[in-house]
Amino acid sequence: MTGESKNWILMATARAPTNIAVIKYWGKRDEALILPINDSISVTLDPDHLSATTTVAVSPSFEKDRMWLNGKEISLSGGRYQNCLRELRNRAGEYTDENKGIHIEKYDWNKLHVHIASYNNFPTAAGLASSAAGFACLVFSLAKLMNVKEDLSQLSTIARQGSGSACRSLYGGFVKWTMGNEMSGSDSIAVQLANETHWDDLVIIVAVVSSRQKETSSTSGMRGSVETSSLIQHRAKVVVPSRILQMEQAIRNKDFSSFARLTCADSNQFHAVCLDTSPPIVYMNDTSHRHDLFHNYRIISILERWNRHEGTPMVAYTFDAGPNAVIVAPNQKVAIDLLQRLLFYFPPARDNELSSYVLGDKQILHEFGLESLSSIEGLQPPPEAKDKAPAQRYGGDVSYFICTRPGKGPAILVGEDQALISCQTGLPK
Amino acid sequence: MTGESKNWILMATARAPTNIAVIKYWGKRDEALILPINDSISVTLDPDHLSATTTVAVSPSFEKDRMWLNGKEISLSGGRYQNCLRELRNRAGEYTDENKGIHIEKYDWNKLHVHIASYNNFPTAAGLASSAAGFACLVFSLAKLMNVKEDLSQLSTIARQGSGSACRSLYGGFVKWTMGNEMSGSDSIAVQLANETHWDDLVIIVAVVSSRQKETSSTSGMRGSVETSSLIQHRAKVVVPSRILQMEQAIRNKDFSSFARLTCADSNQFHAVCLDTSPPIVYMNDTSHRHDLFHNYRIISILERWNRHEGTPMVAYTFDAGPNAVIVAPNQKVAIDLLQRLLFYFPPARDNELSSYVLGDKQILHEFGLESLSSIEGLQPPPEAKDKAPAQRYGGDVSYFICTRPGKGPAILVGEDQALISCQTGLPK
Repeated sequence: MTGESKNWILMATARAPTNIAVIKYWGKRDEALILPINDSISVTLDPDHLSATTTVAVSPSFEKDRMWLNGKEISLSGGRYQNCLRELRNRAGEYTDENKGIHIEKYDWNKLHVHIASYNNFPTAAGLASSAAGFACLVFSLAKLMNVKEDLSQLSTIARQGSGSACRSLYGGFVKWTMGNEMSGSDSIAVQLANETHWDDLVIIVAVVSSRQKETSSTSGMRGSVETSSLIQHRAKVVVPSRILQMEQAIRNKDFSSFARLTCADSNQFHAVCLDTSPPIVYMNDTSHRHDLFHNYRIISILERWNRHEGTPMVAYTFDAGPNAVIVAPNQKVAIDLLQRLLFYFPPARDNELSSYVLGDKQILHEFGLESLSSIEGLQPPPEAKDKAPAQRYGGDVSYFICTRPGKGPAILVGEDQALISCQTGLPK
Repeated sequence: MTGESKNWILMATARAPTNIAVIKYWGKRDEALILPINDSISVTLDPDHLSATTTVAVSPSFEKDRMWLNGKEISLSGGRYQNCLRELRNRAGEYTDENKGIHIEKYDWNKLHVHIASYNNFPTAAGLASSAAGFACLVFSLAKLMNVKEDLSQLSTIARQGSGSACRSLYGGFVKWTMGNEMSGSDSIAVQLANETHWDDLVIIVAVVSSRQKETSSTSGMRGSVETSSLIQHRAKVVVPSRILQMEQAIRNKDFSSFARLTCADSNQFHAVCLDTSPPIVYMNDTSHRHDLFHNYRIISILERWNRHEGTPMVAYTFDAGPNAVIVAPNQKVAIDLLQRLLFYFPPARDNELSSYVLGDKQILHEFGLESLSSIEGLQPPPEAKDKAPAQRYGGDVSYFICTRPGKGPAILVGEDQALISCQTGLPK
């Protein structure tokens, strides 16, 4: 390795999306390699609204690997980070920048340390699959930095070892994580089923629920399910393979009715397996900040009542292992009807401005014509609720809504202003 | 048929218990005959605390079959009542009372009409398996009145056709409802596994939750599960048969740890199947008086935390298709610890007297030494909660508690003062 001085810094910045599984990953066959017991399928969410941005920097002046997440330094000593760093270093390529006089041999990468700074563009407390976006972004940006010549599916096997669902964030649109058969996990990869333009009428509304949550609760939760649920193997071996085929077809044909049926059924079966675990997974974290996994059944009830009233699925709903509801509408018109219902049943706490309560794609809100808070108070119950006793409203249940769409995969961000690390200091800006 | 006059009235009065399934019945293979897809096992609750009392009367002066339930006349035209009446009339025997000059041939019963009055000794709104107690009592009392010479297992096939779980209320103690193989349902019968003295250390506390609910929601709910759950057949064919054998052994050996493990697992799997239904069964009724099926997960969470703290199951919990929690303690000492926790987390609404908040076996409460409401306010959090943030309490969640034990099966009540129908008028007293 040569360079004019030891103070050069090489950087790469990327932005990666999060994703929401519509056929769920829940249960590993190998904890160390993060190999699942069944395939899963996800939709990538638009990184304009939800993303991780990561700058990775390398310099001979760095004394050790360091990482800052949302401004706070964190440890890289855990197995998942170590796996990703090792796998990428093993695949790193030679790099030369003649202008800067930098030449890095393949084997040099093992001697160089990295600084990593990452931010999520949504509040951390939301727990919105930040691990998926984060590890996808880490892998993608490090692969760029270290000149790794591997395709996205191969990179997905590395992201997978950081966080299972991160492998699916290597692509936009609709993605499948094939469980694989090999013990090495080399065939447990993500593949793209369709890109983000294939079915771009879809509108996705995320209802972010107030809670703090560790994402590691998924790991221990699903381990409990594999060890104790007498239903999970039947799900993995019989139910999911059939649903994967049906879902692939629904996506291919843009068959919303089937998509919705399968999505809701699989989200509910995921919760069913959580209940079938001993002890049952009814709360998704261990801290005193509890989230009641079944608190969201108000949302299910509201949406199912709408479906029943119309005689056909109007929207699809699904929950991740966190508290958030992800609701998919087939088009903007239905999305407006959906948002109207959501704002009726889940009005903001009194002092919220609408602009901080409904985030993301403002086009929907604008088309909805909801300019001020007083309009929310004046909202009428939906038709399916009018015959009943006065409908109950649940103000404060939801922290905010994000309106988004199926989105692109990871991308490199050029331009020094986008970098999260100072090219002078090598430290976060 | 002869008699001194047409105005004689013949009566029989019985009291029958309710029961709680520890291995659940959920799903029919035949709707008309009420044949289940799997065996179930239950514990009969002490009829001193929870029971149906029924008087059945017959007289040539009665113009039609009539029934009063908790003082209110109801229709007997439904299939379930008709099935029970028909089956018992078909099995009726000759009856002679020389003193009263009454002689009834077997075929006469088809020409005679009955008046039926039934009361539950617990508030109706509780929905505490009143159908099970009610139909068991109806069948038992009519069998007595009509001189039906059949044993309890044979009578259970008739009660079964009124309400599935009613067949298990024909016995005390621990009861199994064998699913049977015959299409006629002749072998779908209840048998006693052990009587109420076998394991009489057990203390059972029922937490009755505030809600109104139709019990018919079980029928439509389980039909939805059979039609749409992709997990229910695996449960019925693989999981339950194994659990039945294990539970029989646990009961035989009075192995509380296994009993608790199986009971909790099966209750949770029942809820899991409810979730795995399309649409998911999250509310157990259709009226505007909703009961959130998963509201009770606070109770599960509290009890599981206790179990985890002690490293062994302290109590068993199970839920019926209604909102009520049934918690089984291995002995009175643990029952007192249990009640202390329940009263801490679920204090009465402010204006409740303790005597109307904890019902049933007063011995437990007396031994607990809880004489007044102020003691409830002063209760300390249990040890397993002390390290956390101040524990949240849920006043008003529970309407009241009933402390009871495994109990006897149905019995005839002698003495005219126990009869609910006047021997003069043939109408409810």
